[in-house]
Amino acid sequence: MSSMKSIVMQDGKVQLTNIDIPQPGPGQVLVKSLACGICGSDLHITRHGSEVFGIFQKMGLLPETMEASPKVLLGHEFCAEVVSFGADTSSKFNPGDRVTCVPILLSKEGAGVGVTPGIHGAYSEYFIVDEALLLAVPDNLPSAAAAVTEPLAVGLHAANRAAMQADEVALIAGCGPIGLATIAALKLQGVKTIIASDPQQSKRDMAKEYGATHCVDPTAEDEVKFASEQAAGKRVVIIECAGIHQLINSFILRAPAHASLIITGIHTADTKVNFGYATVKEMDIKFSYYYTPEEFAESLQNIADGKIDWQKMCTGKVGIDGVSAAFDTLMQPNDHVKVIIEPWRNGALESL
Amino acid sequence: MSSMKSIVMQDGKVQLTNIDIPQPGPGQVLVKSLACGICGSDLHITRHGSEVFGIFQKMGLLPETMEASPKVLLGHEFCAEVVSFGADTSSKFNPGDRVTCVPILLSKEGAGVGVTPGIHGAYSEYFIVDEALLLAVPDNLPSAAAAVTEPLAVGLHAANRAAMQADEVALIAGCGPIGLATIAALKLQGVKTIIASDPQQSKRDMAKEYGATHCVDPTAEDEVKFASEQAAGKRVVIIECAGIHQLINSFILRAPAHASLIITGIHTADTKVNFGYATVKEMDIKFSYYYTPEEFAESLQNIADGKIDWQKMCTGKVGIDGVSAAFDTLMQPNDHVKVIIEPWRNGALESL
Ligand SMILES: [Zn+2]
Ligand SMILES: [Zn+2]
Repeated sequence: MSSMKSIVMQDGKVQLTNIDIPQPGPGQVLVKSLACGICGSDLHITRHGSEVFGIFQKMGLLPETMEASPKVLLGHEFCAEVVSFGADTSSKFNPGDRVTCVPILLSKEGAGVGVTPGIHGAYSEYFIVDEALLLAVPDNLPSAAAAVTEPLAVGLHAANRAAMQADEVALIAGCGPIGLATIAALKLQGVKTIIASDPQQSKRDMAKEYGATHCVDPTAEDEVKFASEQAAGKRVVIIECAGIHQLINSFILRAPAHASLIITGIHTADTKVNFGYATVKEMDIKFSYYYTPEEFAESLQNIADGKIDWQKMCTGKVGIDGVSAAFDTLMQPNDHVKVIIEPWRNGALESL
Repeated sequence: MSSMKSIVMQDGKVQLTNIDIPQPGPGQVLVKSLACGICGSDLHITRHGSEVFGIFQKMGLLPETMEASPKVLLGHEFCAEVVSFGADTSSKFNPGDRVTCVPILLSKEGAGVGVTPGIHGAYSEYFIVDEALLLAVPDNLPSAAAAVTEPLAVGLHAANRAAMQADEVALIAGCGPIGLATIAALKLQGVKTIIASDPQQSKRDMAKEYGATHCVDPTAEDEVKFASEQAAGKRVVIIECAGIHQLINSFILRAPAHASLIITGIHTADTKVNFGYATVKEMDIKFSYYYTPEEFAESLQNIADGKIDWQKMCTGKVGIDGVSAAFDTLMQPNDHVKVIIEPWRNGALESL
């Protein structure tokens, strides 16, 4: 067992490939990927890799000597099974235990799992995690449920960044996994008015199931005006979960006075903005990117406690040989929310 | 006494003109302007009036039917003397009393004094204020001191928006009146590290006198890097007081992780920004525009108590017939911080 199947992203494409199984180093654990979500950021990095890596290079997070179009082994939303241990590990976990964790490697200076060139991700049969970060997955939870922990943590973090009072009004723009996770988190926090905005009826319906109190089709109605009317002077918090950078200026133009704008999308293109409106309205713009380990653990607990219905969000499953075709499907308009890869089997994308 | 001298701004120019003295309506007081500061926003609106008014029109703050290049009677940083009363006023103030106030007219739906077409400002010999908003100016305070209340309130508001802990690091970019007022407010709040950045030596020297603990020439050294080094992991709060819109993207690019950016400049031009950096750093961007009446009153009290040295900031005085030439001077690079107009007299701009 020295080679394995892996999905390799390069030059805007993902392809099934055979690569070597990595060896766990000190403090590390080799795990088998049981389930891994396909994330909007995986699609974004596939389409706009050079833009994203350019930013990381300019920020010193990737070496400047990195090749222009590196290979990336995707997969950061996972449930995995412990296989074997590197040096300097404890006996806290045993082979066969199911685990999940924050997708970073402290042992590699905090590099992101499933996004950093040279580091294995959970779209592969096997990959490496840090023992210190592992959380046990409760026996009663399906592996797909644990794989949803990561996007729920992103939504919880966005909700925490918004720091809302119960009588303020939330407007969630975009009801993909992050939008739904944010709605679910705001509902648990007791926010009473949660307005979901999405051009797709199916996404709006799902938003209702996760706790949205109102739904707006932004192609038919001004969703910001609707939120302002509901707020009647209370603060409106617009949470951008659509990943459309033109929305930022549009929200600045349309927001009511003292609105907050939380940006969860990763906007790596230059954006034209007129900040004059933000000034006169005294807006706050907060960028929400990465949850804390505590928020991650809380999200797993919320799933285990049945506080958030992970299952409704999982709209598709695919085996490792179906990932490339699934990417083609997901790059086009579609009704999927979260598609789970099961890298240990073959099979085309099927809806659930 | 039915006509008076007034500075009228139109088509990018300010000119001395004779106009009618306004009549105070219900709840209003006619006052004589004793001292009025020339504000950066007065210069900005003179240069970029159509841009600014376009924004106000789009926001519904000015009528869409307004003429393209309206006359504006400037002057919103004032000390004035009570002259006469409209209907429905109390006897709280007497003719001859010196007063200042937040430059808005509640009686005109909150319209700004000194910026709204059709409303008189304090660059005129006489103008109108709301009795309900008036604050008495203590007898021992010169009129110029009370005129500085307004920019100090802007700085106090920016400091309050920043909501800093004592051991976080403030970087004030631009040491004009608002930068200096912000520095003074942060010092009173106990912030221990206040870094002033300005390309002019004279402004940096003044920043030190107002409480800056470090000064950086941003044309010689990366001021953000300097602040990050001082912070050693604590939050850096960059307060933009330069009014240069290109600085916003530059600060987003250079800021350390979790930095806050407070924008006090009024940036009415479109700005190109790459928000990807703000996301990865999880920045907060807050826009600071208008102080509360409480912040205004606190600023007047700070002057009266000698907590902030208003006098150092006042670098020039000018009579009403010297304003037009003074604007020409202030539009060019110069060493002035705050120039005070005394509309009741003639006289060219003189340095203090
Ligand atoms: Zn993700
Ligand atoms: Zn001003």
